Amino acid sequence: MRGLHLTADLFDCADPAGLLSDGARLQQLCEHLTDEAGLTVVGSHFHAFPPGPHGTVGWTGVLLLAESHLAVHTWPEQHAVTLDVFVCNVGQDNSARARRLLDALVARFAPGRAHRQQVERGVTA
Amino acid sequence: MRGLHLTADLFDCADPAGLLSDGARLQQLCEHLTDEAGLTVVGSHFHAFPPGPHGTVGWTGVLLLAESHLAVHTWPEQHAVTLDVFVCNVGQDNSARARRLLDALVARFAPGRAHRQQVERGVTA
Repeated sequence: MRGLHLTADLFDCADPAGLLSDGARLQQLCEHLTDEAGLTVVGSHFHAFPPGPHGTVGWTGVLLLAESHLAVHTWPEQHAVTLDVFVCNVGQDNSARARRLLDALVARFAPGRAHRQQVERGVTA
Repeated sequence: MRGLHLTADLFDCADPAGLLSDGARLQQLCEHLTDEAGLTVVGSHFHAFPPGPHGTVGWTGVLLLAESHLAVHTWPEQHAVTLDVFVCNVGQDNSARARRLLDALVARFAPGRAHRQQVERGVTA
């Protein structure tokens, strides 16, 4: 169950496709890019938060993957989003697929600034 | 959208409550401990994987939280599980709640070895 966990916290997103406040479109895009990256969706669940003072709706969503999960939390009033892609490397090394998926997602939000990190998971003591 | 992301990858779990292969019990426990920690569940989704060579069923599951998410992936044939608790600190600092939740979950699996990490999220460049 060794794996790779990638995070990207994006600020000042130009968000040309209006993903930050459109959960249906965001879910469809996540599923599409996951397929394209060669990872396998086994379930998904997206939830809308009540509108903020400017009337925009934030979303939190997760895709359950055969390889682990993708999570997304949007903050439309802050033009911001957090992304997680976690893959376990059982049977094959999924690291390149995870990077491809996260890179593709980040590009769609067109952030002005990004804080990206990676964590090696399941490393035994 | 600054936040704290805690991970725990657990090995050699004694698993006294049989959580690794019982998704319903695992989901109920995750929801209960999240409530106890003072965090708010807004959705959850658990998925069973096909039985492995020894007939045990692994689970992957996520709770969507008002504060971000909890994710769990079990590997019963390896007596292992990965846990994630990610909280954003909007309006209040949820770090102590996240630690309380993860500590409580880790204890229920009674691992022989644990690999725990923490990542500060949403730190602007």
